[in-house]
Amino acid sequence: MVTTYQELQMYKNFDELANDVLELAKEILPDQLIYLTSLSDSQQVILKLSNEDTSIAVAEGLVLNLNETLCNRVDFQNNQPLIYEDIQKESSLEKLQQKLDEVNIRSYLGLPISLVNGEKFGTLCAINDEVTHFDAKSIQLLQKIVRMFSYYLDLERFAYRDALTDLYNRRYLSNFFDNHSSKGGVIFFLDLDGFKKVNDLHGHEAGDGVLKEVASRLQKLAAEQPDAFAVRLGGDEFVMHFPSIGSKEDISQQAQHVLDRLSKWDAQYQLSTSIGVVTYPASGTEELAALLKHADQALYEAKTSGKNTYKFF
Amino acid sequence: MVTTYQELQMYKNFDELANDVLELAKEILPDQLIYLTSLSDSQQVILKLSNEDTSIAVAEGLVLNLNETLCNRVDFQNNQPLIYEDIQKESSLEKLQQKLDEVNIRSYLGLPISLVNGEKFGTLCAINDEVTHFDAKSIQLLQKIVRMFSYYLDLERFAYRDALTDLYNRRYLSNFFDNHSSKGGVIFFLDLDGFKKVNDLHGHEAGDGVLKEVASRLQKLAAEQPDAFAVRLGGDEFVMHFPSIGSKEDISQQAQHVLDRLSKWDAQYQLSTSIGVVTYPASGTEELAALLKHADQALYEAKTSGKNTYKFF
Repeated sequence: MVTTYQELQMYKNFDELANDVLELAKEILPDQLIYLTSLSDSQQVILKLSNEDTSIAVAEGLVLNLNETLCNRVDFQNNQPLIYEDIQKESSLEKLQQKLDEVNIRSYLGLPISLVNGEKFGTLCAINDEVTHFDAKSIQLLQKIVRMFSYYLDLERFAYRDALTDLYNRRYLSNFFDNHSSKGGVIFFLDLDGFKKVNDLHGHEAGDGVLKEVASRLQKLAAEQPDAFAVRLGGDEFVMHFPSIGSKEDISQQAQHVLDRLSKWDAQYQLSTSIGVVTYPASGTEELAALLKHADQALYEAKTSGKNTYKFF
Repeated sequence: MVTTYQELQMYKNFDELANDVLELAKEILPDQLIYLTSLSDSQQVILKLSNEDTSIAVAEGLVLNLNETLCNRVDFQNNQPLIYEDIQKESSLEKLQQKLDEVNIRSYLGLPISLVNGEKFGTLCAINDEVTHFDAKSIQLLQKIVRMFSYYLDLERFAYRDALTDLYNRRYLSNFFDNHSSKGGVIFFLDLDGFKKVNDLHGHEAGDGVLKEVASRLQKLAAEQPDAFAVRLGGDEFVMHFPSIGSKEDISQQAQHVLDRLSKWDAQYQLSTSIGVVTYPASGTEELAALLKHADQALYEAKTSGKNTYKFF
C-alpha cells in the first residue's frame, strides 16, 4: 500500500526530519537545490525544498505527472542513484529535455527512498541550473542519510498500521477523522460471521490467515474508490471509510458489493460478513466514537436479522 | 527497560547504521576520533569507533565503569551536548582529569542519544588529543544525525517488543534462543487463571490493564535476577527465561516467588497464575518449539491440579 500524502501529514515528526535531511544534504552539496518528493503510481509531490531563492521553478506542494519527471527514471529495484551531470548532453531524455530547459534544470541527481517492505516512497534530489559534477563520496553520504530517513518513515508508518494485516489501525482512523471529517463520509463497520469457529476448529494460525485474506480483499475494494480506505479495529472487526458517495441506493450497492467479495471462502470455513452502515454529513459535528457506536448498533441488527447482510443506522 | 547489549546484537541493521552515523559524523568533524556508546545504569560500552589509528586508547567493546566516564555527565534530561574544548582547563572534572590525561584525551564532545519513550540509549562522542574548538553548526548537524539514528533504534526496538505491554515478544525469545541456548536455562510458561472473566465482566480495557500490570510485575521480577527476562507470547500467555539457576529446589522457590507476586489483585478480579516449568541443559540440542510445548504440557497439569500453582515437565 502506497504511503499517501494524507498519511504523511499525520507523521508526528515528518517536517522536522525532512528539514534535517535537507540540511545535512545541503552540507554535502552546498551549491545544489535539494528537495524531497513522494511518488505514487501516477504522481510526484514535492514535499520539501532546501531553498527557494533560485532560478529554478520548483516549489513545495507542486504535484507533477509522474511520466513527465526525471524521478520516474530512478532505479528503485536496484536502489541506484540517477545522475545527469549535463542534461543538454543526454540523448535519452527526448521530450523531457525541452521542459527541463524551460524551468532551468541543467543537472540532476536523484536517490531512491524505499521502505523496509520494498515499497517505493519517493526521492531525494539535487538539481542545478548549471552543469554539475557529482562526486562518488557525496553520493555515498547522501545515500546514508536517505537510509536513515527511510527507517524513520517506517517507524511512523508502523504506528498507523495493524501489525497482522498491514491495514490502517484505529489510530489512523481517529487521526483521519480529526482532520477530514468536515468533508462528510460513509462508515462501514464490518464483523465476520463465524470467525470464532474458524479459530476453535482450525486453530489461531488459520484464523490469522482468514484475517489477512479479509484485509487483502478490503484493500482491493478500497483501491476501487478514490480516497476510500480500510482499517482493522482489532479481532475480526474492520472499518471501511468512503468519502460521501451519493444516494442511499449507491451506498447500498457498495455495501452489497463488499458483502459479495467477502462471502467466498474455502468450503471448510463457514464464513460471511455483517455490516453496519452509518453516514455523516459535511461540516457536521459528529464524534467518531458516537458514529462507531451507531454503526455497531446497525451491525448488531444485521447480525440478528440473519447475518451476511448490511443495515443502515 | 534499558536496551541491553544482547538486544542490540539482534538488530538487523545496527552495524550498518552505526557505521553510517560514524561516517557522516566524520565528514562533519574530520579531525576527531568519533564513537558510539551505549549506557546502562552502571556501565558504558564502546559500540563502534570511527578509526583506531590514534594515540587515544579507546577500543570497540570496551566496557567502562559509568562513574569514571565523561558521558555520565551528559545532560539527557534536556538533550544537551556536553563540550570540553580543553580538558586540562576544566576544574570540575577533578579525579577524572588524571585518567583522561593518561589515555591522551584532551577535548571531548558528547551528544545524548535517547529513544522516543525517553529511555537513555547512549552517546555519540568526538574526542581528540589536542585542544579543539567545536563550532555550533557542526554540533547542530551531529544532533540531526543522532536524531535520525534514534528513530532507527526505535524501529528495531519495536520489532522485539509487545505493543501493549512493552515486554519482549515471541520474536525476541526465539532470536535469543537461537543465539544463547547453548548456555542452558529455565523457562517458566505462565498463563493467567480467570483472565477471560475479567474481559467478559469488566471489558477489554480492564483486561488490557491487567495484562499491563502483569507485565510490569514480571519486569520487576526479571530485574531481580541477572540476565533474566520476561516475554509476552500473546493473549494472557507469558514466558520468563532464566539462565541456569541451580537445583530443582532453587527453581521451585523462584516459581513460588513469581506466583506470589502475581496473586494479589483488586477484590473485583478473581485472578491467579499457573506456571509450567521446563529446564534445558547447556550445549543441548533442544528446539524452542519443543521446549514451549513441554512447558505448555506442564502448565496444563498445573491448571488441572487446581491452578495458582506450578508444575515441572
